[in-house]
Amino acid sequence: MAGYKRYRKEDAVSYALGITLTFELLRFQTDAVTRVFIHSEMKQGDTLNKLKRLCEEAGIEMIQTNKIFNVLSQKENCYVIGEFRKFQGTLQKEDSHIVLVNPSNAGNMGTIMRSALGFGLNQMAIIRPAVDAFDPKVVRASMGAIFSTDFVYFDSFAEYQAQFGERELYPFMLNAQKKLHDIQPSGTFSLIFGNEATGLPDEFLEVGTSVIIPHSHRIDSLNLPIAASIAMYETTKQRF
Amino acid sequence: MAGYKRYRKEDAVSYALGITLTFELLRFQTDAVTRVFIHSEMKQGDTLNKLKRLCEEAGIEMIQTNKIFNVLSQKENCYVIGEFRKFQGTLQKEDSHIVLVNPSNAGNMGTIMRSALGFGLNQMAIIRPAVDAFDPKVVRASMGAIFSTDFVYFDSFAEYQAQFGERELYPFMLNAQKKLHDIQPSGTFSLIFGNEATGLPDEFLEVGTSVIIPHSHRIDSLNLPIAASIAMYETTKQRF
Repeated sequence: MAGYKRYRKEDAVSYALGITLTFELLRFQTDAVTRVFIHSEMKQGDTLNKLKRLCEEAGIEMIQTNKIFNVLSQKENCYVIGEFRKFQGTLQKEDSHIVLVNPSNAGNMGTIMRSALGFGLNQMAIIRPAVDAFDPKVVRASMGAIFSTDFVYFDSFAEYQAQFGERELYPFMLNAQKKLHDIQPSGTFSLIFGNEATGLPDEFLEVGTSVIIPHSHRIDSLNLPIAASIAMYETTKQRF
Repeated sequence: MAGYKRYRKEDAVSYALGITLTFELLRFQTDAVTRVFIHSEMKQGDTLNKLKRLCEEAGIEMIQTNKIFNVLSQKENCYVIGEFRKFQGTLQKEDSHIVLVNPSNAGNMGTIMRSALGFGLNQMAIIRPAVDAFDPKVVRASMGAIFSTDFVYFDSFAEYQAQFGERELYPFMLNAQKKLHDIQPSGTFSLIFGNEATGLPDEFLEVGTSVIIPHSHRIDSLNLPIAASIAMYETTKQRF
């Protein structure tokens, strides 16, 4: 008898909660999908038929059970769960990257992935210690963008820099040298953001060109997904 | 005996949950503060002494009780609650505004207030139906920015336009005429954003100059606080 457990970082699989996320999973990470669970209250109709067809075509087992929903889903109206093997991305030297140094909030990481996909910057380096990108909260906040994101963990920024340092590096800091609208990234670049509470340590002032998003002194700082999204907008706006 | 109830939209007062928010409340809306509640687990020390001094100077009653915390606060580590009378803002014709049409999410509204204060755009028109700006969830997400925001509700956009239409109006829409980086707001303007799920209705294509934030087709849209913050950044970046 299968016992269902809460998601843990050590698990080999994670979950897309809800029909919309599961469709994104099936579309962009088909090979990673292990099982799809259906709740007894899932309505018959076109949506379910489409799901069945996609699973059949890909040879994915569909299981009718309510048990896993009780364990994994706190939200109402979640009648489909897609289970998937954790997949492995690869960063490209010729692509621009987002670098998150010690991110601690799952919702923020997912939101950043969504914006990053929107701005064509879906290659992400994550510097440990960091939140688990496969946490179902990240998956949900990303609205499925995680399934189109290449992300790779590094033990330190130095390790990332050794592999990918040959590019324009822009650490975002409150005591930075340049304003965001004064930089002109011309080639391949990395936008680097620190932890939600502490930002980037001062040693990043020596890394590439440090950047600040100009704002008034009435707030301490912008929140992380907003700062990251503004930076992505400004550095990619000529492309779209 | 005082009975404490959950916050409701109809109430004459609302609440700042936590010490940081309560300090913001005392600083920027001193006259609106009615009572400050202290939990028995609040530590003695400089912070409490400062709070006591501020309340004493302003003639605000401090009440030691745990009851209201059980009712209002789900979070741990909330040992101070500031109660305040709902205050009334005024919009200025000579200032630029944020206009939120039918916003439905409290957290989003608070996050937008925080960014707006950061970009010096802390005058906000809210078009009904809309979430209650005094909901403690808005107060918390704003990180206190609500206490420095002038916001006014209108029953329709037409009502807002009749009073404040003599300015540059920029509705943000996915089928807009211009890209954000191609507009050049020169004077007083209003940035107009629709509901989280539905955006602005097509009739807004006839209002001022409709604007889109350029992004790839890999996502449907940016989330509302992020779109609003990017728009605010782009239209104010020369000021800071």
